Amino acid sequence: MSEIKVGVLGARGRMGSESVRAIEGAEGLVLAAAVDAGDPLDALVDAGVDVVVDFTSPAVVMDNLRFCVEHGIHAVVGTSGFDDARIAEVRALAAQSPQVGVLIVPNFSIGAVLMMRFAQLAAPYFESVEIVELHHPDKVDAPSGTATRTAALVAEARREAGSPPVPDATTADPLGARGAVVDGIHVHAVRARGLVAHQEVLFGDTGETLTIRHDSVHRESFMPGVVAGVRGVGSRPGVSVGLDAILGLD
Amino acid sequence: MSEIKVGVLGARGRMGSESVRAIEGAEGLVLAAAVDAGDPLDALVDAGVDVVVDFTSPAVVMDNLRFCVEHGIHAVVGTSGFDDARIAEVRALAAQSPQVGVLIVPNFSIGAVLMMRFAQLAAPYFESVEIVELHHPDKVDAPSGTATRTAALVAEARREAGSPPVPDATTADPLGARGAVVDGIHVHAVRARGLVAHQEVLFGDTGETLTIRHDSVHRESFMPGVVAGVRGVGSRPGVSVGLDAILGLD
Amino acid sequence: MSEIKVGVLGARGRMGSESVRAIEGAEGLVLAAAVDAGDPLDALVDAGVDVVVDFTSPAVVMDNLRFCVEHGIHAVVGTSGFDDARIAEVRALAAQSPQVGVLIVPNFSIGAVLMMRFAQLAAPYFESVEIVELHHPDKVDAPSGTATRTAALVAEARREAGSPPVPDATTADPLGARGAVVDGIHVHAVRARGLVAHQEVLFGDTGETLTIRHDSVHRESFMPGVVAGVRGVGSRPGVSVGLDAILGLD
Amino acid sequence: MSEIKVGVLGARGRMGSESVRAIEGAEGLVLAAAVDAGDPLDALVDAGVDVVVDFTSPAVVMDNLRFCVEHGIHAVVGTSGFDDARIAEVRALAAQSPQVGVLIVPNFSIGAVLMMRFAQLAAPYFESVEIVELHHPDKVDAPSGTATRTAALVAEARREAGSPPVPDATTADPLGARGAVVDGIHVHAVRARGLVAHQEVLFGDTGETLTIRHDSVHRESFMPGVVAGVRGVGSRPGVSVGLDAILGLD
Repeated sequence: MSEIKVGVLGARGRMGSESVRAIEGAEGLVLAAAVDAGDPLDALVDAGVDVVVDFTSPAVVMDNLRFCVEHGIHAVVGTSGFDDARIAEVRALAAQSPQVGVLIVPNFSIGAVLMMRFAQLAAPYFESVEIVELHHPDKVDAPSGTATRTAALVAEARREAGSPPVPDATTADPLGARGAVVDGIHVHAVRARGLVAHQEVLFGDTGETLTIRHDSVHRESFMPGVVAGVRGVGSRPGVSVGLDAILGLD
Repeated sequence: MSEIKVGVLGARGRMGSESVRAIEGAEGLVLAAAVDAGDPLDALVDAGVDVVVDFTSPAVVMDNLRFCVEHGIHAVVGTSGFDDARIAEVRALAAQSPQVGVLIVPNFSIGAVLMMRFAQLAAPYFESVEIVELHHPDKVDAPSGTATRTAALVAEARREAGSPPVPDATTADPLGARGAVVDGIHVHAVRARGLVAHQEVLFGDTGETLTIRHDSVHRESFMPGVVAGVRGVGSRPGVSVGLDAILGLD
Repeated sequence: MSEIKVGVLGARGRMGSESVRAIEGAEGLVLAAAVDAGDPLDALVDAGVDVVVDFTSPAVVMDNLRFCVEHGIHAVVGTSGFDDARIAEVRALAAQSPQVGVLIVPNFSIGAVLMMRFAQLAAPYFESVEIVELHHPDKVDAPSGTATRTAALVAEARREAGSPPVPDATTADPLGARGAVVDGIHVHAVRARGLVAHQEVLFGDTGETLTIRHDSVHRESFMPGVVAGVRGVGSRPGVSVGLDAILGLD
Repeated sequence: MSEIKVGVLGARGRMGSESVRAIEGAEGLVLAAAVDAGDPLDALVDAGVDVVVDFTSPAVVMDNLRFCVEHGIHAVVGTSGFDDARIAEVRALAAQSPQVGVLIVPNFSIGAVLMMRFAQLAAPYFESVEIVELHHPDKVDAPSGTATRTAALVAEARREAGSPPVPDATTADPLGARGAVVDGIHVHAVRARGLVAHQEVLFGDTGETLTIRHDSVHRESFMPGVVAGVRGVGSRPGVSVGLDAILGLD
């Protein structure tokens, strides 16, 4: 396999500069261009870039994608602000160059993506399931967005499988120890100093339990997701949303 | 160390019969008498019993203890129904033979006793602490009695140490994901098929967490507690309550 | 969905009698026939059985399967002794009735099957992976068969993805604390009283870990696998091996 | 309780500067002096310092302690290099001012200290015990020093209690999956990217397990230990070694 030449847009930003380091350290990837505000995009073409990583801003990302599509450069996009309307706009754009891949990624943590995917897959096979998310005590909302989304995915998979409600004989719980109920699934939120971001999905059936746990110990944990995106985007022509696509999970 | 001769009262009951098996299998202990309803207590004296294990009923246990005290036999008592009044009655009884040890044990699980003790000891040294208890889904109350008692012990230890309230920035928790608050300590109750009885006490401070977890996978887990009680009661003259005493933890 | 009529062969054996109980308790399944050594197989036909569960012995299972195939009855087979030769024999047999499903299952624990499957799926996306299996101290071999098989599956998935060897800077390990190396993957075996059968697969990459853990707390944990097999075998004509097939995981 | 005035020696070093921040943020402590190489120690006296924290170097720490003892200032010492000879030297020095407390601390992580202490306390009460330590893959030695020391403490506690060897029926372990044996205790070392420094001590007996787990997620986790040392040293006249003393654990 020949090397993939990568260009980073937003290369001096927090995420962009980490991407630069990650790409420099990744087997099979070469950093060919580091571009930031004010730099001409032509540098990407001059350097023969195969894949662009975009961590810029909602204001400029569409112009960047237009340039990439026109020049046959694949793109991995971590910039925020991609609602349904904007994704439709990207699809229209990408239709001009059907061989180009554009991958829009709301969550670069591979571990979190896999946890949610495995929870969906396991859901139909267990009588019980509960979710415990654990975070630092400065978090203002409970439960976490990831826990809520996991509960929704699990609940949907159970509905499709025709699973009955989870068993629960609780008749006395005056203080609310059984936690939140999201879409029929109990979700518990633990807060403690020393924690960063963690989640456990616990499945149970007669005589056995299966636990899927994700621990993030620092924020840089999205870099492997960036690298996986860069490696995979070239073989996924058209527009994809979420790492699931390139992880071979959908 | 010479062998300890043990007599079991209530030897054909569920707990008594397990005690018989546990004693037969324990290093340094000899089963000298197995007595049940209708059998004469004199068998204990005839067999030269050193220590009695009592798993009978509230109706007969006081007569049994009277006999033991009068004949200089130590007693480990697992029979229920010992409120403060009854304990006072036992103390009066035992005062007649100051060399005899009587150990009344509400919870024979050594693991649970140690978990609570370590939680008390650790409490003053961490900014955060939360409790998660996990049980089978047929349990009707939440949180468990052990979790409630652990929270109370931890809260008391924090008060004595002058600890401030645990940090918690939560402002939005519409569904109650943060669980119960017992004496200022958050307690979460998980229910799932495949679980038996489990509890985790999570302490956290800057950059580190300490977790103490107890897992009971079957009900026979109290037998090591019975054996420890039998081994230790002889060197604890007078009346003691709880395994803490003979575990060297108080 | 109409009810599935189930016949159990070997109904008075240890596994067969548990299957009888499990089927009686399962939504959508009806126990239509309980057959043991000496009983005529015609009872299956008389009762209009749709699916047979076979927990008999290697000596009689092939005759049972022949009967089922000839009478258009699907079969879930937990009886041991199915090597490649015997599976080929079953395929030849089943070819006579292409609409019949025969499911041969070496391991009925859904949790263990899912753990191995998720480990395979996750393998390409993490720099590191190690396996820790934990069992009761009466087990004579280490590591467990499941751990060895998991390591092989993970190693194969990494090879296919072109993953480099796992990172490990260890230069001094005089006592062998780093454990076994199976196919390039470190495997650790813990033995302790109070454990039954447990396994943890730990994946790690920059700043995050993903842990998949399976706990078996008693031997009856295979019953949900039996029920899933009964429910799924009818829609899988021909011969399948392993629960993966009917779990929708292959 | 009035405030404690604290002086930091080595205040511009890595540990010293973190200590400065930790003290400024701690209830009841006031940073009264921040001293580094070249600054006069008289600043401590001028500021009315009650307790000094010393993160300097083996070359100057003895002079610092001499100054403190002579001026009635308590000292918490994190500087390395304190072997038995040097500790004896400090004892001789401190004997001149019997009311002064000097606390020499090899490991400031309260969680690690408590884990080791609880492991010692639990050791006599369980048939089985094993240790699993988990670290980042750049660590060159296995097992970790903390794991080795924990094993030694547990083994000593078992010997004193007259415990038999841990049960282990393993007869076939060709690849060494059972790990290292330190003083009769099995120790396993896991290495994976995404881990920092973690250890689990697993105790087991009939039907139950007790797990004590410590997770360090970043190096700053020693600061609560520094603060606890500062708060406690004044009530411990003479020379103490290790946080155990001020944690009320010995």
